[in-house]
Amino acid sequence: MRDDRFVRACRREPARPTPVWFMRQAGRYLPEYRAVRARLSLLDIVHRPDVCAEVTLQPVRRLGVDAAILFSDISVLFEGLGVGFRLEERRGPVVDEPVRSAAQVEALRPEEVAERLPFVGETIRLLVGELDVPLIGFAGGPFTLASYLIEGAPSRTFVETKRLMHADTGLWSALIDRLEQAVASFLEAQVRAGASAVQIFDSWVGALSPADFDEWVAPSLRRLVGRVRALGVPVVYFGVETAGLLDRLAGLGADVIGVDWRVELAEAWRRVDPARHGIQGNLDPALLRAPWPLVEARARAIVEAAAGRPGHIFNLGHGVPPDADPSHLERLVERVHAWTGDAGGDGHAS
Amino acid sequence: MRDDRFVRACRREPARPTPVWFMRQAGRYLPEYRAVRARLSLLDIVHRPDVCAEVTLQPVRRLGVDAAILFSDISVLFEGLGVGFRLEERRGPVVDEPVRSAAQVEALRPEEVAERLPFVGETIRLLVGELDVPLIGFAGGPFTLASYLIEGAPSRTFVETKRLMHADTGLWSALIDRLEQAVASFLEAQVRAGASAVQIFDSWVGALSPADFDEWVAPSLRRLVGRVRALGVPVVYFGVETAGLLDRLAGLGADVIGVDWRVELAEAWRRVDPARHGIQGNLDPALLRAPWPLVEARARAIVEAAAGRPGHIFNLGHGVPPDADPSHLERLVERVHAWTGDAGGDGHAS
Repeated sequence: MRDDRFVRACRREPARPTPVWFMRQAGRYLPEYRAVRARLSLLDIVHRPDVCAEVTLQPVRRLGVDAAILFSDISVLFEGLGVGFRLEERRGPVVDEPVRSAAQVEALRPEEVAERLPFVGETIRLLVGELDVPLIGFAGGPFTLASYLIEGAPSRTFVETKRLMHADTGLWSALIDRLEQAVASFLEAQVRAGASAVQIFDSWVGALSPADFDEWVAPSLRRLVGRVRALGVPVVYFGVETAGLLDRLAGLGADVIGVDWRVELAEAWRRVDPARHGIQGNLDPALLRAPWPLVEARARAIVEAAAGRPGHIFNLGHGVPPDADPSHLERLVERVHAWTGDAGGDGHAS
Repeated sequence: MRDDRFVRACRREPARPTPVWFMRQAGRYLPEYRAVRARLSLLDIVHRPDVCAEVTLQPVRRLGVDAAILFSDISVLFEGLGVGFRLEERRGPVVDEPVRSAAQVEALRPEEVAERLPFVGETIRLLVGELDVPLIGFAGGPFTLASYLIEGAPSRTFVETKRLMHADTGLWSALIDRLEQAVASFLEAQVRAGASAVQIFDSWVGALSPADFDEWVAPSLRRLVGRVRALGVPVVYFGVETAGLLDRLAGLGADVIGVDWRVELAEAWRRVDPARHGIQGNLDPALLRAPWPLVEARARAIVEAAAGRPGHIFNLGHGVPPDADPSHLERLVERVHAWTGDAGGDGHAS
């Protein structure tokens, strides 16, 4: 491996320069990705380990990022659970039948997830042989997965999800339990295949009040994080709009908390406690369409807020948008590395 | 006036019981409102002072809330600015031509707003004669209004708004200046007509990073708040997803900060400083479809977090949803009043 500074940063060990990667770094903003997507759907790619590995590698080659992330979508787990769905362009996962009954919840089979998704492990094994940086495995968080299953499609308000959570707490618990089992077993399979770290994308958890998070989501998340960490890999937990939940996220046992751009990095890090957590973020992805001097100034401010403290992983506050300027991403990697490099070496720098 | 405890709470004066009102308290969840909407559009209602006053009064009569809020929509200001638009059901304001050029910005006429919207002052004058609680005037915040004008329609990501803000800062400043003038003059007209307080609905401001808020929104907001407060009425500033911006909102000079449900009330209040600000919120509107015992428990927790400190105004964290249970709102008013009332009287209680 060229360097494992990403994994060291996850563990708050000295890691210079600051590791950089980007959520959705394999995506439509890359011409080489669009060339593949011209002939294959996203789910086709995921099902073909050779192509999936190639797409995962594209941004690593072009950008020089310090970690690869398995190319996938959180809805792939629905296939493992036996839930019919499709991925709609510019919309997201739409399930055939919204899951709102006990019979539907009981029909979910978390114990079959790993065997139903063999192509994921195969892709990871291919990648581990090719990569000279760590590979991040990933899955959606139980709340976020539940919201797609219950709403049936992407939602802004999570009306049906909250209705079920508030009004049928037994069914909610049964669903979240099964999703916890499914995510744990999916992430375990990814780690066994060679992933060096995992990220839980609980993208929509910030829709919850702190009280709802405490009562109906946090206990399951704590078990999930504990189970994955027991395999010896660091866990990154990420959601958007979590500025009001940071004290709670600090209680999940994750190694790194990923934050969006709606909160200052230094404040977020104080709230999750720098002695216990690394932090990942937090440039507004909208800046990837802005003039470079502004992008550079905002990235620099993030690096200065991190102040060289171990545990900072530079990233965006959410995924790379389809119309991002790829040269901005290339320059961000170069600049963050230059600002945080240690020319003299400290025994840890690559 | 039956009581002005809402205005006293805005000023952090003793006000018992805790005042209660609900954003979008006049709306589709009320059968009497649906009866009016069966024959008139929202904009028709706004243009007819007698009907608009009646709709504004409906929730005051049914719920016993401590404040009325002018029935309107933030897009009404676009009519005052000479911008063509329509209100789409379940979507929101859609402008005829997205505003993205200097010529379009120069064509906006903030100085004509008050005279182009005479029906607003007329509605307020009718209401002031009828009401025995304070009337809250309102307008959108400059950023939120700008986002509708630039995107052309409601947006989740504010791609075009941020692109313009980041890439054409001169045009952004010109636009935000005109919106500041327009909002100030619209709110001044409402106060002159009899509004006892105003709320600035900057609903989408939480889409901004703290750095963007500081640089491109806050200076204009400070001027706007100062100009309206100079008329002698309190100003409530509200947006959703602002947990990471609270330190900044404390610098605007507003009397009360309204917060959504994504942050604990006590923490939000600490962050905006209880010696300088009242706080309004923060029950998740999704609870209005939940079983009553849960609603009651969550409302009680908010009242306990406020701990009887002057300056708490009980409200939701956003507007009442169309499928809310009206009886929940009636009971919330009754319960909050009962928990916070002062049977013995303290010279301030009504």
